[in-house]
Amino acid sequence: MDSGNPRIGIIGSGAIGGFYGLMLARAGFDVHFLLRSEFSAVQANGLTVNSDVHGQLHMKVQAYANAADMPPCDWLLVGAKATSNAELAPLIVQAAAAGAKVVLLQNGLGVEEQLRPALRPDLHLLGGLCFICVNREAPGVIRHQALGAVNLGYHSGPGEGAGAVLEQGAALFRAAGVDSQAMDNLGQARWQKLVWNVPYNGLSVLLQASTTPLMSDPSSRDLVRALMAEVVQGASACGHVLPDGYAEHLFRVTEQMPDYWPSMYHDHAQQRPLELQAIYGEPLARAREAGCSLPRIEALYQALAFIDRRNQQS
Amino acid sequence: MDSGNPRIGIIGSGAIGGFYGLMLARAGFDVHFLLRSEFSAVQANGLTVNSDVHGQLHMKVQAYANAADMPPCDWLLVGAKATSNAELAPLIVQAAAAGAKVVLLQNGLGVEEQLRPALRPDLHLLGGLCFICVNREAPGVIRHQALGAVNLGYHSGPGEGAGAVLEQGAALFRAAGVDSQAMDNLGQARWQKLVWNVPYNGLSVLLQASTTPLMSDPSSRDLVRALMAEVVQGASACGHVLPDGYAEHLFRVTEQMPDYWPSMYHDHAQQRPLELQAIYGEPLARAREAGCSLPRIEALYQALAFIDRRNQQS
Repeated sequence: MDSGNPRIGIIGSGAIGGFYGLMLARAGFDVHFLLRSEFSAVQANGLTVNSDVHGQLHMKVQAYANAADMPPCDWLLVGAKATSNAELAPLIVQAAAAGAKVVLLQNGLGVEEQLRPALRPDLHLLGGLCFICVNREAPGVIRHQALGAVNLGYHSGPGEGAGAVLEQGAALFRAAGVDSQAMDNLGQARWQKLVWNVPYNGLSVLLQASTTPLMSDPSSRDLVRALMAEVVQGASACGHVLPDGYAEHLFRVTEQMPDYWPSMYHDHAQQRPLELQAIYGEPLARAREAGCSLPRIEALYQALAFIDRRNQQS
Repeated sequence: MDSGNPRIGIIGSGAIGGFYGLMLARAGFDVHFLLRSEFSAVQANGLTVNSDVHGQLHMKVQAYANAADMPPCDWLLVGAKATSNAELAPLIVQAAAAGAKVVLLQNGLGVEEQLRPALRPDLHLLGGLCFICVNREAPGVIRHQALGAVNLGYHSGPGEGAGAVLEQGAALFRAAGVDSQAMDNLGQARWQKLVWNVPYNGLSVLLQASTTPLMSDPSSRDLVRALMAEVVQGASACGHVLPDGYAEHLFRVTEQMPDYWPSMYHDHAQQRPLELQAIYGEPLARAREAGCSLPRIEALYQALAFIDRRNQQS
């Protein structure tokens, strides 16, 4: 770790930012939350995590409505939607200490590439893949149903030291009781996570179904498996050979999970824009460049794009 | 035509049976309607077609609740859902005069093969592909928005004479003011009709969208075109080379149609079973046997099968 207690900023405290921020705060780290719509609720009542794993966690936290009021942070965890990265970039820069590490706790591909040009050259940029079932129940109140691991990969930064930064990050999460692994290859880690997100996020919106019904019907099971197989194929075309049996492993994990509504379902239900570009558009474009067609994922993307546009217009 | 005025029986008088039956009756044919849930309404009030093409058509008709009460018919037009063919077969046989012609006015593949074993050997079996925008507004009341052609193909029957039977059938419809063509090859005619049904029927349920929004969004337009291209590919693998530009022709026709909710949408909305086997399952199985994979159609079929099962259970 850094010398002394690293100061951690959480940008966008929805379910992901709130959960990990609270875990880190209760482990004794100095955590600062930048909030928008939930600022007054969190300022008044603190953060609550109703966890089926850890029980009820509750803490008063250091909450901010403006990045300008935050002290300079050594680590910045970005839990906001990938769709808002462009407008968040100046706030991230504002809250970042010299040489800070910015971790995008987001799904999909291309999110670091999109943010990088807006960051200062002294900042390290990492990606974090969260394997967790959480959602926001109310302002400042988060429901945690299962899992929790965060796998980190290094994207870019000043000079050498990627490995050390990654290890520091993983150690930070582990010190807070969160499983965390440093991944050699962020691209591969992001494709691996897509094996889950591509089927379950999209189908939860398209079929208005959570994981238990999706895993209980023979046709949706076949469809999930076929979509997973296409992600593995796309990864491979892009040079990332995923571990043998990885898709089947995630399929089995999902079968054993409590019934879960993926984040895209909540985004749709609350008429927020869907993270389609990161989870579908960019992987399809990269596979296509590599000469690989993923017809089922493309059809799912087209159907979701229709639904998303209609949802945003209504 | 047959000597004298052929007697026509309509089996299952939803939108399709009701529309064509009324058109034939008002042209002076002797038409008999076998009805189930709509019997008393039609018996009391006759049939009404509110047509944007022909204006309002209304007639008292010869309605029956039991096939045993019908006189033997020379032509039987089956407008019921393909999903109910098995239970309809005995009624069709009961209402059929010796040597009668049975016309399945249904979409999809395999419907004749499924019904044939239940028919007498003296009966001719034909398929009819309806290019029409109709739906049922109320018991005995049908809304006709556009189009109306019926293309006929011969499936099987006693001995020779297929061509003559087909021409008689087409002449019957034309005498009632309905465009009708005798098709050389029923299999090809059914694949051609699938170019429309596969995208629009399924997407109307999956996206809860009628033709106008589907044709107004760039992503759903791409998806419709990609699904149409897979139908053309499947047809070709099964030995049916569709006319050049046929898919694009149907795409343009649909763009110019009034806004239309396909029949599968109404089936779903009224919790009737969807015609998935005929429109998706059978074409996929035949293409697969011919070594041809149709991934987008398969994904759509799996999604619809999930939706249909949930809808039937609820």
